[in-house]
Amino acid sequence: MADPEPTGEFGLIAWIRERVQAGRGVSQGIGDDCASLTFRAGAEVLVTTDMLMEGRHFLLHETTAAEVGYKALAVNLSDIASMAGVPVAAFVAVALPRGSAVEVAQGLHAGMIPLLEKFGVTLAGGDTNAWDGPLVVTVTLIGEATDRGAVRRSGARPGDLIIVTGPLGGSLLGRHLRPTPRVAEALVLAEVVRLHAMIDLSDGLAADLGHILEESGGLGATLDALAIPIHPDARSLGGSPIDHALHDGEDFELCLTVSPDDADRLLASPPSGVTLHRIGTIEVEPGLRLRLADGSTRPLTPKGFDHLLGGAS
Amino acid sequence: MADPEPTGEFGLIAWIRERVQAGRGVSQGIGDDCASLTFRAGAEVLVTTDMLMEGRHFLLHETTAAEVGYKALAVNLSDIASMAGVPVAAFVAVALPRGSAVEVAQGLHAGMIPLLEKFGVTLAGGDTNAWDGPLVVTVTLIGEATDRGAVRRSGARPGDLIIVTGPLGGSLLGRHLRPTPRVAEALVLAEVVRLHAMIDLSDGLAADLGHILEESGGLGATLDALAIPIHPDARSLGGSPIDHALHDGEDFELCLTVSPDDADRLLASPPSGVTLHRIGTIEVEPGLRLRLADGSTRPLTPKGFDHLLGGAS
Repeated sequence: MADPEPTGEFGLIAWIRERVQAGRGVSQGIGDDCASLTFRAGAEVLVTTDMLMEGRHFLLHETTAAEVGYKALAVNLSDIASMAGVPVAAFVAVALPRGSAVEVAQGLHAGMIPLLEKFGVTLAGGDTNAWDGPLVVTVTLIGEATDRGAVRRSGARPGDLIIVTGPLGGSLLGRHLRPTPRVAEALVLAEVVRLHAMIDLSDGLAADLGHILEESGGLGATLDALAIPIHPDARSLGGSPIDHALHDGEDFELCLTVSPDDADRLLASPPSGVTLHRIGTIEVEPGLRLRLADGSTRPLTPKGFDHLLGGAS
Repeated sequence: MADPEPTGEFGLIAWIRERVQAGRGVSQGIGDDCASLTFRAGAEVLVTTDMLMEGRHFLLHETTAAEVGYKALAVNLSDIASMAGVPVAAFVAVALPRGSAVEVAQGLHAGMIPLLEKFGVTLAGGDTNAWDGPLVVTVTLIGEATDRGAVRRSGARPGDLIIVTGPLGGSLLGRHLRPTPRVAEALVLAEVVRLHAMIDLSDGLAADLGHILEESGGLGATLDALAIPIHPDARSLGGSPIDHALHDGEDFELCLTVSPDDADRLLASPPSGVTLHRIGTIEVEPGLRLRLADGSTRPLTPKGFDHLLGGAS
């Protein structure tokens, strides 16, 4: 008998997750931004992987190879940041278009250099191929948790306040190609308060906060529309700016939850160079809600992009 | 001024290697089968990544998704084996053909299951995408060195004997799709003798042994044509069977070097279930030589496949 068909990316992830073994040494598998491996001597290794495909995530006639290289590494750095980890080593597997393989490879590398240097990450290996197909870049990034341990999606508690590290929406106008991974911000935040849960905003605030709520045991949240920081790009696009801030992906800011006391302390005196916006509250009642300017509340449904179905889901 | 153009895959690897930082925590970067990361608490983490592309490494109308999944994981297991490491966790990034994304994903997974179970490896994460392009599968495998440390390519010494774990050549007839990763063999060998250098045979015996010679400081070797185990498949193909055994890729047997005393002990009483063939000797004089049946010796030039140039190099 065949299994029921999994539907879309999230269905498939669930399907795979059911089949994932609770294996030796792996304290956390599918279901967070990074896999975390605890080896016998106690080091907690963080691993994340992302594949960028020409024609799907970028167009080479609109985007330089350096921009692709930058982004491919940046999105993985953002995953390590979301767990408040320290990035250590990157592995880059590429399928290069045959006619321009060397130029594209050099461009990818040139785009990665600033991030490698900024975050002290070693380009430690990979797999280089050429073919007649489009450019495909898979970056796998290995990091290490600090002594505090990695911050999960699953630690949110009712009453926690929800904080984001920057304005949201409209990244499609160009910011999505050059996100700033919040690695340093995550580390300093983890040092000054106890981060209950954290995620980086790649699928959109509503969808990614939804992941925190789900992984934290089916909690809910109310967001305050007036408090959500809206990026100027979200106002330049057509449509509702708040909808862009709630649903556009690829902001790569952090979304975190902390106790009310810690939130008060953080907002009263944010760590140097860290921007913080308090945007809502974690609640026992499941579901996501948006409080409007008039004080009324409406249900908020994530409009996440399903990478497998290839459209909004 | 532009750098001189790197030529082909090996040129590009050299070009990248020159630019690789000697970074924090990474005891070994590009230039071996796995990157080895030593974290603060002493655990030595092994990381390897391989990308398989439809139309380049396989054809989906000739090869099932399960065979592709099996092979994508097996080649990475073979890389961990070549360092005598213990595989721990696999990460699978895929670009799935849109029309058959779910079937292909399930097929890939089905092909991986036997290897995951056999070697106790956890499928711990990945990235799932669909597009209008061909199937691309990137597997990254994380392993751990044993207390003895990882076995490198770079440890061969003049006088060492060269040993392989099975017959070579003709894998193109089908064996290349279902290699047996020599993980257990490597671990037991590392336990009973001191392995000076080891590599898995993916590019062909001459080319891969060449990597050992180069990484060990520019040593040489003489192989004994009569001693090289030739697979029956190498005899079924046209051409010279010994040439197939020397130059065909994707046997995924291990090639290792040990002291003459250790070689004698191993060959006199091989570990249970391990097949060993003594095929030659490491020498001070650089270069690779083949001793023929009549006692004469001829130079041996690797005919490695350059994945970037897309042909024999």
